[in-house]
Amino acid sequence: MVCQRPGDRRPDEMRPVRFEPHFTRSAFGSVLACCGETQVLCTAIVLDEVPPFLEGTGRGWLTAEYRMLPGATPGRHKREWQKLSGRTQEIQRLIGRSLRASLDLSALGPRTIYIDADVLQADAGTRTTSITGGYIALALAVRRLLEAGKLENSPLLKPVAAVSVGAIADNLLLDLDYREDSTADVDFNVVMNGDLQLIEVQGTAENGSFSRPQLERMLDLAQAGITMLLAAQAAALTAA
Amino acid sequence: MVCQRPGDRRPDEMRPVRFEPHFTRSAFGSVLACCGETQVLCTAIVLDEVPPFLEGTGRGWLTAEYRMLPGATPGRHKREWQKLSGRTQEIQRLIGRSLRASLDLSALGPRTIYIDADVLQADAGTRTTSITGGYIALALAVRRLLEAGKLENSPLLKPVAAVSVGAIADNLLLDLDYREDSTADVDFNVVMNGDLQLIEVQGTAENGSFSRPQLERMLDLAQAGITMLLAAQAAALTAA
Amino acid sequence: MVCQRPGDRRPDEMRPVRFEPHFTRSAFGSVLACCGETQVLCTAIVLDEVPPFLEGTGRGWLTAEYRMLPGATPGRHKREWQKLSGRTQEIQRLIGRSLRASLDLSALGPRTIYIDADVLQADAGTRTTSITGGYIALALAVRRLLEAGKLENSPLLKPVAAVSVGAIADNLLLDLDYREDSTADVDFNVVMNGDLQLIEVQGTAENGSFSRPQLERMLDLAQAGITMLLAAQAAALTAA
Amino acid sequence: MVCQRPGDRRPDEMRPVRFEPHFTRSAFGSVLACCGETQVLCTAIVLDEVPPFLEGTGRGWLTAEYRMLPGATPGRHKREWQKLSGRTQEIQRLIGRSLRASLDLSALGPRTIYIDADVLQADAGTRTTSITGGYIALALAVRRLLEAGKLENSPLLKPVAAVSVGAIADNLLLDLDYREDSTADVDFNVVMNGDLQLIEVQGTAENGSFSRPQLERMLDLAQAGITMLLAAQAAALTAA
Amino acid sequence: MVCQRPGDRRPDEMRPVRFEPHFTRSAFGSVLACCGETQVLCTAIVLDEVPPFLEGTGRGWLTAEYRMLPGATPGRHKREWQKLSGRTQEIQRLIGRSLRASLDLSALGPRTIYIDADVLQADAGTRTTSITGGYIALALAVRRLLEAGKLENSPLLKPVAAVSVGAIADNLLLDLDYREDSTADVDFNVVMNGDLQLIEVQGTAENGSFSRPQLERMLDLAQAGITMLLAAQAAALTAA
Amino acid sequence: MVCQRPGDRRPDEMRPVRFEPHFTRSAFGSVLACCGETQVLCTAIVLDEVPPFLEGTGRGWLTAEYRMLPGATPGRHKREWQKLSGRTQEIQRLIGRSLRASLDLSALGPRTIYIDADVLQADAGTRTTSITGGYIALALAVRRLLEAGKLENSPLLKPVAAVSVGAIADNLLLDLDYREDSTADVDFNVVMNGDLQLIEVQGTAENGSFSRPQLERMLDLAQAGITMLLAAQAAALTAA
Repeated sequence: MVCQRPGDRRPDEMRPVRFEPHFTRSAFGSVLACCGETQVLCTAIVLDEVPPFLEGTGRGWLTAEYRMLPGATPGRHKREWQKLSGRTQEIQRLIGRSLRASLDLSALGPRTIYIDADVLQADAGTRTTSITGGYIALALAVRRLLEAGKLENSPLLKPVAAVSVGAIADNLLLDLDYREDSTADVDFNVVMNGDLQLIEVQGTAENGSFSRPQLERMLDLAQAGITMLLAAQAAALTAA
Repeated sequence: MVCQRPGDRRPDEMRPVRFEPHFTRSAFGSVLACCGETQVLCTAIVLDEVPPFLEGTGRGWLTAEYRMLPGATPGRHKREWQKLSGRTQEIQRLIGRSLRASLDLSALGPRTIYIDADVLQADAGTRTTSITGGYIALALAVRRLLEAGKLENSPLLKPVAAVSVGAIADNLLLDLDYREDSTADVDFNVVMNGDLQLIEVQGTAENGSFSRPQLERMLDLAQAGITMLLAAQAAALTAA
Repeated sequence: MVCQRPGDRRPDEMRPVRFEPHFTRSAFGSVLACCGETQVLCTAIVLDEVPPFLEGTGRGWLTAEYRMLPGATPGRHKREWQKLSGRTQEIQRLIGRSLRASLDLSALGPRTIYIDADVLQADAGTRTTSITGGYIALALAVRRLLEAGKLENSPLLKPVAAVSVGAIADNLLLDLDYREDSTADVDFNVVMNGDLQLIEVQGTAENGSFSRPQLERMLDLAQAGITMLLAAQAAALTAA
Repeated sequence: MVCQRPGDRRPDEMRPVRFEPHFTRSAFGSVLACCGETQVLCTAIVLDEVPPFLEGTGRGWLTAEYRMLPGATPGRHKREWQKLSGRTQEIQRLIGRSLRASLDLSALGPRTIYIDADVLQADAGTRTTSITGGYIALALAVRRLLEAGKLENSPLLKPVAAVSVGAIADNLLLDLDYREDSTADVDFNVVMNGDLQLIEVQGTAENGSFSRPQLERMLDLAQAGITMLLAAQAAALTAA
Repeated sequence: MVCQRPGDRRPDEMRPVRFEPHFTRSAFGSVLACCGETQVLCTAIVLDEVPPFLEGTGRGWLTAEYRMLPGATPGRHKREWQKLSGRTQEIQRLIGRSLRASLDLSALGPRTIYIDADVLQADAGTRTTSITGGYIALALAVRRLLEAGKLENSPLLKPVAAVSVGAIADNLLLDLDYREDSTADVDFNVVMNGDLQLIEVQGTAENGSFSRPQLERMLDLAQAGITMLLAAQAAALTAA
Repeated sequence: MVCQRPGDRRPDEMRPVRFEPHFTRSAFGSVLACCGETQVLCTAIVLDEVPPFLEGTGRGWLTAEYRMLPGATPGRHKREWQKLSGRTQEIQRLIGRSLRASLDLSALGPRTIYIDADVLQADAGTRTTSITGGYIALALAVRRLLEAGKLENSPLLKPVAAVSVGAIADNLLLDLDYREDSTADVDFNVVMNGDLQLIEVQGTAENGSFSRPQLERMLDLAQAGITMLLAAQAAALTAA
């Protein structure tokens, strides 16, 4: 079986990516990150406080919250507020872990950076777009701290970006959209840093199982996509 | 005491208003409504369901949710969950009541229109901007129902718009920004329809009390502001 | 259309009002406030604590809670306890704001006065009866603090009282009972102080809209009702 | 050690008991039940519904809710919400079980009687006063169902009443007030029916332990108190 | 009517009792307590903290939590986690009170002992098995504190054990299993200490009422069962 | 750096594994699964119900709950209630997904299998032990359905087992214990089926990043461990 993607997209082709830095001005850093039809507003806010387990250590922290706005899907996505779904919690923990990997928390000092990723429109890939966009908001917030003289040296280590890969029958596809994602047999999310080293790998057989060689090829695809995203991130930050 | 407004704004002058219809495409109707630095994403989604008290009546319903995103204020506005604050509940009930006043719920049929007003950036006037923008999202959603043949006649009665007025000492000011709002002695929110009839009046003395003549003059200011907003709404809907 | 009120009550006539001060003895101040069939137990308790935002300022606070007991309505009003309804929150915020307007919070010192308004029987007007009765409980609590030597001067500024007005078709009616309230087109709640200055105005068109002249006449009715309530409050406090 | 009770009350003497039937009119049955300074408003409301485990059986149910109003104690009793304390749940389960023992649930038919016991003032004995007063509210509600022709025969079996007994050192005391209760070594609550048969016995050593002979004497005291309460109940119901 | 018990058990005969001390090693004390088919894992953990009302007094505390695992009953017992049922709260309060009666809380010092009773399999008598097993876990934890030199003298006063008794028609039966328990007319739980003095008595007529002589005979049965359980406890602790 | 493991365990050596099938009898299937000091009680219960999204499809479902008992860790693990931690939710979603991969849900018919994994003692590897043990409980429950004639053919496809691998500096270690796990730089959890095909791969750099070759070697280690666990599972099921 060969898989025809919308708009004749090739299996190893990303959707169009667009970043609008400074989309809002009240947060320390913000970006509207768009990947195809997926739109995520990422903001970074820095507060002079640390979680209890870091008090007195001089180290800082980064934490993330992820939500989907009700209007993000045609059928109205109900707000989660009595409790968070497992999916939401998994995603925001992943965003936080991934972005912490880009930071020297000692160099940050006793501050917490809050990354908020609010999905305005969802067409799959919201968690990976949140990571890639979240890094831009983070870098803009760090820039502001440096400009304000609150930090002397940047605590940023290396950029971080993420992408999804999926298998539909025998087809391995980069950067699934919603229609593809909902029929995928295997779902892979990969986070890498600016050296293309791995930060996180999550692969799940939604249907059946997968082999070691398939895993290898999916990682190859992810690496190609992340290479492109890192370049787009850098361009957006230079222009901002 | 005479009050100098930022940017030499006159006491009876609105901040610049901007509406971006179709900001997202997944909702039935959407608009990014901006009033000065205040940015609210309003979406309207229509579902074929009604609340229990309307079942079997053939009538429809409109309900609203209002939230402020964490990045909307410099100090990070914590998401409300587990329970909503009284302020949030008051605001979303006000938005819902005001927009229902623009609808013939029998002509809507057994549907519910969900208006979601998510504040991306907050510089006061978020509830009134949500009402004014919410009407645009609502009108776009109705247009889509008409175009899809799901409705034969529009259930829209008259447009609805809202504005705030405040008193700082003896100065009565239209459309307060955050800095003005936080020092106001009296806080007034007024909702009117396209005939400039009153839908809702809420006036609170935050400090001291106010007289009947002051109330009169604040209503005059509100009427002038709403006249301008109704024109901007109409222009945005024509262009969309 | 002319509206016939139960018991031949005139449009501008209040229901019989009755206050039983010291209904319970454990609270600092208490009153059973009855307006027609509506019965509200208002208590005031003073604790030597202030909310976090007032710590170290020397100023005090007043806060209110409002609840309807299950037996207050024939169909059993379910207790709110997992979360408060928007209506309940609006009401208790209104009671708190209104009664704070009667207090010099600096003169109160670092104390919090808790006003609890528990509706034993509900026949409309429960929020306004809570405000009017709440002032009596508050004044009795202040008297007790003065008698105990905990305060040298009374922090009370002016009494506060509240009443509802409604429009049913063209009829404007003072102090609606439940049957009237449930058919009203416009619902107005007005809070005034002892000088008949406005503290709060809340007017909502439940059905249609209302004009500026109607608003004027409803405020006139409210002022007449509040004048009578202020006299009854004063009499109850003198006798207590 | 000999224990001097306030007002020279004898060890086997109840506090003054007072019942005000029909305290509110909206519930099917209501009574303000006072035992010394303890005041409990008991209401009974009947709804045509049964809990799921009784659906289709033709049998009815009785359930109880118990709450203490904030003004019931000098230090302000915080409202329980989000979760009920274990103490509150134990008490309302006890009230429900005890009053169900007075009812033939088959003769009641597919209805639920809701007993609400709201403590307006607390001076110990609130759970036993709730049971004794709850029976009066229940009997008044049944009378109203009979008068309205909704029941042909009364489902009431026998009246039910309750009292507390305590041990302070070697003194066994009937009907403790708050000051006595807070120093008691053993706390006993006894529920009996009109034949003085036992419905419920709950005895707890708060401090140390107690012997079988002590238990016997506490049951004797309880029986004397309940005999008196049953007479007062009957008188109140005759007069109502 | 004569009641035939499973396995020809006599009315005054306990089910087989088995204690496996040190079932887990991470807790300070642990035991798998089995009574017939009922299996409860009891653990005791000691932390250097006290509840707020004991701060600064030098006294310690003991508190208990009780839960039934989902697999404990054939129909799957849903975990309680949004709120605890009244039954669960009653049981864990009873376990806590009963075990505190075995401790000199001053001699314990500023520590809290947490008793966790997790029911792995439920065949009635879970609360009494939790108390009897809980005492073993408690005694093992105290032994460990003594061995570690954290306590010089044991704060244990007397052992505590508990058993249930029930009435089915005229038959009084010791230590009911689930099938018996679900048809019992009267349900009695009795807690005694090593001197066979009473700590707690809870008797409930689930159906009808009971007389004073019946109460006496049920207490006799309970005393016989508890005598046996105290011996089994002592043997397990000697062997551990 | 070379890493010395407790008890001279080799880097590619599992801890001792022990399965006690039928540990409780009330559940359809149960096993006490022990891996080193980690002890997990896994039960499987089958109910004739399906979640709403499967109603009318004839297909069944499997879902899992995971909890750690308070006594499982020396410092007392507080029960999660009101809301589950993100970690707990991730784990129980992983257990559910992994075990569903071993089932033909159509062949199961309209039933839900509930897997409950309650950790009695935690020494790392609780999620993987829950999966490996959960499969045994599942297989025993299926056996019981077959024996009872409720299923004609087994819906089991292939067994499923899981293991953790970690990197500490340059050392790659199979099946970490708690002390190792808390210092690991990379944490890997791998789930495979009886054909050693991949079901789930989750790898996280807790500190730094990891390379593709490291990922390969960790998967090799995991495969060796899972091979051994599949054999132990089969032996336990044969003996049960």
